[in-house]
Amino acid sequence: MKFYDCAMAPSPRRVRIFLAEKGIKIDTVQVDLMTAENIQPAYLKINPRGIVPALQLDDGTLIDETLAICQYLEALHPEKPMLGTDAKSRAVITSRTLAMEWDGFLRASEAFRNSAPGFGDRGIPGLGGITAIPALAERGMAGSRRFIDTLDGMLGKSEFVAGTSFSLADITALCVVDFMGWLKVTPTDSHPNVQRWYRSVSSRPSAAA
Amino acid sequence: MKFYDCAMAPSPRRVRIFLAEKGIKIDTVQVDLMTAENIQPAYLKINPRGIVPALQLDDGTLIDETLAICQYLEALHPEKPMLGTDAKSRAVITSRTLAMEWDGFLRASEAFRNSAPGFGDRGIPGLGGITAIPALAERGMAGSRRFIDTLDGMLGKSEFVAGTSFSLADITALCVVDFMGWLKVTPTDSHPNVQRWYRSVSSRPSAAA
Repeated sequence: MKFYDCAMAPSPRRVRIFLAEKGIKIDTVQVDLMTAENIQPAYLKINPRGIVPALQLDDGTLIDETLAICQYLEALHPEKPMLGTDAKSRAVITSRTLAMEWDGFLRASEAFRNSAPGFGDRGIPGLGGITAIPALAERGMAGSRRFIDTLDGMLGKSEFVAGTSFSLADITALCVVDFMGWLKVTPTDSHPNVQRWYRSVSSRPSAAA
Repeated sequence: MKFYDCAMAPSPRRVRIFLAEKGIKIDTVQVDLMTAENIQPAYLKINPRGIVPALQLDDGTLIDETLAICQYLEALHPEKPMLGTDAKSRAVITSRTLAMEWDGFLRASEAFRNSAPGFGDRGIPGLGGITAIPALAERGMAGSRRFIDTLDGMLGKSEFVAGTSFSLADITALCVVDFMGWLKVTPTDSHPNVQRWYRSVSSRPSAAA
């Protein structure tokens, strides 16, 4: 089993935190997004979608998308469950994890990839030749601010993003909030619930991953 | 249990097909996206994200995101599995289902919502006040064409989108291909694998859902 990672990237960090929480070590290969190594032929041969994180099984099967990778790892290492323990908690964690991706990651990524120098033709993860759209960067910035507001409302109702225990939804939200920090969108005093939650999840040893 | 649907919309159609394949009937409420009923206070009280499909459990728990809804329904009705049967097939189906969403649904949605009359301020599902970005509609059109090409390559290697059996990944891809038909992006004779697969999946009785 081989984990394709990029140490500076917010998206594969979710898998790194998941592994750290579980105390699992796996063979890791760094793919440098900054130099666009992910869209060079060598990596596209491994993952035609050109994205990290990706997990390659020993039989060659390629699994990308964080949720799928973590689902596989959780099946292999069920102790300390982070994807739920029954039908309802599993569905709620999946639902909230994907909400963090669509309402958070996507917005931050729109803002970052359509404005950052060096990403001028990489407006979509995994692809080259996608010209930046400045209006989309602006829409992504507004969406990022909206995300922090929404997350605050959510965390006013429960201790963690998907209920009473730490899950992949929290890992995803933490990586989104830190990604939004690059854009200078940060929780303020008007987001007391995000601040309380952030202090808790960011002080777990896994957050260093 | 109550299913919030919109009969004309591509996204909740995935849940309708999943239910039809399983032979399950549940209480269904129509939410009219055309008149923006989904972003009116009554529906936002049920799902603050303003999107369909959504499933409300009898205890009030709200589950949105197709994958999460289907995960819950599959746990309740395990016969005729469409989310995999072991760790590997489950992870591959999740991975491919999400790839269909990010590389397919998102692209078609960018094209549709940033160009269709009546969606001029609904550039993102579940929100109002999001002004259309014409350049993003163009990017979405290019992405839709790229999706059909990529899907053809994928279906050249396996009978179904995620291997040898029909799964949620096929349901998602079918709904994406039909959605792209609205944009006049359709498989051609240079997509023989998509054509073969499309004939097969669209002729299943569930496709009428």
